[in-house]
Amino acid sequence: MNGTKKAVVLLSGGLDSTTLLAIARSEDYQIYALTFDYGQRHVIELESAKAIAKACAVHEHRVIKIDLRAFGASALTADIDVPSHRCESEIANGIPITYVPARNTIFLSYALAWAETLEAEGIFIGVNAVDYSGYPDCRGEYLEAFQKLANLATKKAVEGFQLKIQAPLIQLTKSEIIRLGVSLGVDYSMTTSCYNPDPNGMACGVCDSCVLRRKGFKEAGMKDPIAYSG
Amino acid sequence: MNGTKKAVVLLSGGLDSTTLLAIARSEDYQIYALTFDYGQRHVIELESAKAIAKACAVHEHRVIKIDLRAFGASALTADIDVPSHRCESEIANGIPITYVPARNTIFLSYALAWAETLEAEGIFIGVNAVDYSGYPDCRGEYLEAFQKLANLATKKAVEGFQLKIQAPLIQLTKSEIIRLGVSLGVDYSMTTSCYNPDPNGMACGVCDSCVLRRKGFKEAGMKDPIAYSG
Repeated sequence: MNGTKKAVVLLSGGLDSTTLLAIARSEDYQIYALTFDYGQRHVIELESAKAIAKACAVHEHRVIKIDLRAFGASALTADIDVPSHRCESEIANGIPITYVPARNTIFLSYALAWAETLEAEGIFIGVNAVDYSGYPDCRGEYLEAFQKLANLATKKAVEGFQLKIQAPLIQLTKSEIIRLGVSLGVDYSMTTSCYNPDPNGMACGVCDSCVLRRKGFKEAGMKDPIAYSG
Repeated sequence: MNGTKKAVVLLSGGLDSTTLLAIARSEDYQIYALTFDYGQRHVIELESAKAIAKACAVHEHRVIKIDLRAFGASALTADIDVPSHRCESEIANGIPITYVPARNTIFLSYALAWAETLEAEGIFIGVNAVDYSGYPDCRGEYLEAFQKLANLATKKAVEGFQLKIQAPLIQLTKSEIIRLGVSLGVDYSMTTSCYNPDPNGMACGVCDSCVLRRKGFKEAGMKDPIAYSG
């Protein structure tokens, strides 16, 4: 741990990105965690990210405030109802209304700026193409295109430095992610997944994200350590 | 003018981006101008951008505040002296200290988010590979990579919608840009180019940007309508 290789890790405070952080640590990277405050309705996520970064003793954690509400509607950033009680096939089918335009491109761009400054070798992003097949910016070909862009975009790239976009969760099911995380010592009681938590931060249990999380723990044969209101 | 084709135009308030806006207008796009308040030392640029957007009757103008100072040093955003009195060959040689990490990637990412929401066909960016050959993100291959990324990144792209990154200034000299702008009716008295203006907003005349601008007007055989302090 705390090697000389550096990585920027996109940390939302959710189950996937917390597992991602544990993977980057296990690969001996010095971790620079990056969290975005982008007007998401559930600010509890930011608190989770801060607590997780602290508990995992990352080298540095930055929270960047950006305004994605400036551009168009999404149930995650605007005043639109988050869908609930959908089954897995409904969630996987098509692009959900929780889609935020160009979100991952904006997140990766900021990560790239920091990575260039740090001379980091990797950017870790917790995208997943299994549960969220409807998100165009969660696909492998999208990430390959970003890596290609990154290696043309920067001063370091011109000098021959190559950056790698790491998305180790991309082909894993939720239960595989959970099993991997548990094997790496992740404390999932600290993670938040809900799109629509109650005022106390308790997960609703019925939004797409809660449905996938609960199913993941069930399939992994493990008990989800967080409580649900619904 | 004000056709149904839409374009997001990155407008800094400088000579190049103001010419760019005139080009997009001349091509019958409905203009959505996007300006970034990124902690640049010369806020006068923001005022110029607002005045130009108004004078050009753009359909909408948004100013997005982003914090590029969070990542690393640049003479444009940090407390580093802006170089002065350099000749053209010194400016063109190597990557200048006014380089901001991943700046154009972050700008284009926001433009992409807005373009997707608007269903815009183009994003116009005023990069130039002649005067700023040292900036990796001002090269044609970089812009091609971004266009490829953009056409994988969005919901609209998945539905077959193709977005074009337009950089009509990329191979023009400063004098060619000025002649083109004048032919399109650009009022260059409204534009600001200086990296280091005085407290009243007057251009220094000696920073790289002023040197290139003055040389451009001279080569174009035209009088620069702005005043310089040095």
